[in-house]
Amino acid sequence: MKWVVWVGSVRKGSYNAAVARALGGLAPEGVEIERLPSVAELPIYDGDIEAEGLPQTVVALGEAIRAADALVIVTPEYNYSVPGGLKNAIDWTSRVKPQPLKGKPLLILSASQGVFGGARAQYHLRQILVGLDARVMNVPEVMVSTAHKKVSEAGELNDQPTLDFIGKQLAAFKGFVGG
Amino acid sequence: MKWVVWVGSVRKGSYNAAVARALGGLAPEGVEIERLPSVAELPIYDGDIEAEGLPQTVVALGEAIRAADALVIVTPEYNYSVPGGLKNAIDWTSRVKPQPLKGKPLLILSASQGVFGGARAQYHLRQILVGLDARVMNVPEVMVSTAHKKVSEAGELNDQPTLDFIGKQLAAFKGFVGG
Amino acid sequence: MKWVVWVGSVRKGSYNAAVARALGGLAPEGVEIERLPSVAELPIYDGDIEAEGLPQTVVALGEAIRAADALVIVTPEYNYSVPGGLKNAIDWTSRVKPQPLKGKPLLILSASQGVFGGARAQYHLRQILVGLDARVMNVPEVMVSTAHKKVSEAGELNDQPTLDFIGKQLAAFKGFVGG
Amino acid sequence: MKWVVWVGSVRKGSYNAAVARALGGLAPEGVEIERLPSVAELPIYDGDIEAEGLPQTVVALGEAIRAADALVIVTPEYNYSVPGGLKNAIDWTSRVKPQPLKGKPLLILSASQGVFGGARAQYHLRQILVGLDARVMNVPEVMVSTAHKKVSEAGELNDQPTLDFIGKQLAAFKGFVGG
Repeated sequence: MKWVVWVGSVRKGSYNAAVARALGGLAPEGVEIERLPSVAELPIYDGDIEAEGLPQTVVALGEAIRAADALVIVTPEYNYSVPGGLKNAIDWTSRVKPQPLKGKPLLILSASQGVFGGARAQYHLRQILVGLDARVMNVPEVMVSTAHKKVSEAGELNDQPTLDFIGKQLAAFKGFVGG
Repeated sequence: MKWVVWVGSVRKGSYNAAVARALGGLAPEGVEIERLPSVAELPIYDGDIEAEGLPQTVVALGEAIRAADALVIVTPEYNYSVPGGLKNAIDWTSRVKPQPLKGKPLLILSASQGVFGGARAQYHLRQILVGLDARVMNVPEVMVSTAHKKVSEAGELNDQPTLDFIGKQLAAFKGFVGG
Repeated sequence: MKWVVWVGSVRKGSYNAAVARALGGLAPEGVEIERLPSVAELPIYDGDIEAEGLPQTVVALGEAIRAADALVIVTPEYNYSVPGGLKNAIDWTSRVKPQPLKGKPLLILSASQGVFGGARAQYHLRQILVGLDARVMNVPEVMVSTAHKKVSEAGELNDQPTLDFIGKQLAAFKGFVGG
Repeated sequence: MKWVVWVGSVRKGSYNAAVARALGGLAPEGVEIERLPSVAELPIYDGDIEAEGLPQTVVALGEAIRAADALVIVTPEYNYSVPGGLKNAIDWTSRVKPQPLKGKPLLILSASQGVFGGARAQYHLRQILVGLDARVMNVPEVMVSTAHKKVSEAGELNDQPTLDFIGKQLAAFKGFVGG
C-alpha cells in the first residue's frame, strides 16, 4: 500500500516537514510513504496558463496522487487558514482530469508553534475537500501544538506522546483506507 | 481618498478583474481607485526566503496597502475557498512590519460563474482577516453570480442591477471608512 | 433499509419539511423513510438536566438514529448557520452513549428562500459532524434556492428539476450507505 | 457605559458563567456589566410562534441588548460550534425589529476544558454575526483552555494570567466601543 504525503510548508526547517518525515517510521506494516514535490514548484494558478495546457509539474502531481492508495496532508496554519502555497497546489490539482482527489482516502495532520496546532487550517481544508469529493477521515485528529518544543535541532520529531498518537492515527487510517 | 483593489484571479479575461475595473466608475465622489499588482508576481511563501529579507515585491505591496485609505478585495472562489494565489499574497503581506492590514478598512466582493457568486470564499476570507485585525465591512455583501452572463466579450461588467448594487455597496463603504 | 429524516425547521408550513416529505417518493427502491420527532420537543441543553439523567425524548431520539441505516438532515439556514433548534438537538444527541452519529451515513439537504439555498448552514453542519464522526456524503450537494417558488400552497415540493436532482442524490446516497 | 453579557451555557457550575461573573471585577472604570437572562428561558425558535407575536421574553431580550452600549458573549463550544441554545437565542433576537445586534459593539470570549478553549465556536459565531451586522472586535481573542483548572470549587475564575489577559481585552474593547 502506498501513501503520498503533501507538506504545506516550504522552508527546510519546517516543523510540518519534520512530522512528515516521522510518518515513515510510524506507519503500519505494509505501508510505504512517499513525499510529493514541494508546493513551491508550482506557479500561481492562472487560467491562461491552463488554457495552453497544464504544466508538466501539475500533470505529474496529479498522476502521483492518483497512483497512490491514499493522500496525507501535513500542514501549518497561516493566518487562520490553509497556507496559500498548499491551496494553490490543490487548485492546480483540481484541474487535472480525471480529478485525482475524487474518492481518494485522505488524512490531515497539522503542526504549529501555537496552542491550536493548526486546527483552523484543518477545518478550512475539510471544506475545500468537500467539492473535490475526497474521502477524509474524521478522527482522531492530529494537531501538534507548540511544535518547536517537539522537534529537535536536527529536525526530528521526538516527543514520544505525539509520536504515539500519530501512530494510532495512522493505524486507524489504514483501516479507513481499506474499509 | 485612495482605495487599492486586490484581484484574486490572474487570467486576463477574469470576471473578477472586470468587476474590479468597474469600481472606478462606480465609486463615490472623491474616491480614487488603484489596482494592486497581480498576485502572480509573488513567489510561493517560503520562510527561508523571508529569512534572507522580504522580496521587494512584498515590501512594495505592503507599502501600497499601508498608504491607502482602504483595501477592496475582489476574488473568485476556488474549491470552496480563497484562491491559493490570493491567500499566498495575504500570507506574504502578513509578514511585513508594521503589518499593513491592521486596522485597515476592507471591503470584499466576489464573482463566479455559479449561483453562489463566490460566497464560500468570502467567509473563509473573513476568518483569515480576524487575526490580521483588518476592519472588514459586514453588509451589504456583493456576490456576483453567473458572472459570465454579466460581463461583455470586451470584459466590461454591464449588468445594470449588479452595477447599481455595487454602487450602493461602495457608498456604504465610504461611510464605513470615514466612520 | 431504513433512513430517518431530521428537519431543522419547526413551523408547519416549512419548506424544508416539504422537502423532507418529498423524500419518500424519491427514495430508491427498498428504502423506507421515517421522520424523526420535531427538534422543538427537546429542552435547551443543560448539563444539570443531563446530570439527572438524559430526558426520555433524547434517549428515544438516540435509539431511533442508532437503529436506522442512515440519517438525512433537511434544514434551513438561520443567520448564516445551522438553526439553533437543530444544533440543540445534535448537542443532546451527542451525549447519548454509545454516541448515535458515530459512523452513521449522513446526507444533508437544505432549502431557503434565498439564492444560496442554505449553503452556509451546510458547511457549518459538516464541521459539527467531524468530531461526532458521522460519515457524511460529499456530493452531489442539494441546496434548494428560492424554495417559496418550488413548494405549492399545499406544501408539496413540485419543481421537477429539483425533484429529479434530489432523486439522483438519494440514489447516490444509497450507494454510499451500502459502500 | 453599560455592557450586557450573554452566557452560552446553562448549567449552574458552568465555567463560562464563571468567566462572565469575573468580568465585573475586570472591566475598566465606568463600565457597568449586567447579565442577560439564561438562553434556556426561550422556546426553540418556531415561525408559527413568531407569527402570533414574539414571545415576551424575546422582546425583553431585544430591548436589553438594544439599550446596552455593547454586548459580550461568553460561550462554550459544543460539537465544534456554537451551543444550540445560544444560537437559538440569537435566532430569536434576529427577529426583533429593529434588529438589536445591528451595529452593536460585540466581544467574544470562550472557555472549555479542552486545549482550544472554544475556538471553533468563536469562528462560527463570527460568521453568524456578519449578516446581523454586529460590530465584532477582532483581537485580542480570549479562549480559556483547560478551564476546569482555572475555576475554583466555588465557581470563581482564579487563574491570574487569565484574569490579566481578560482585563487587557476588556480595556481594548472599551476603546473599540467608544471608537
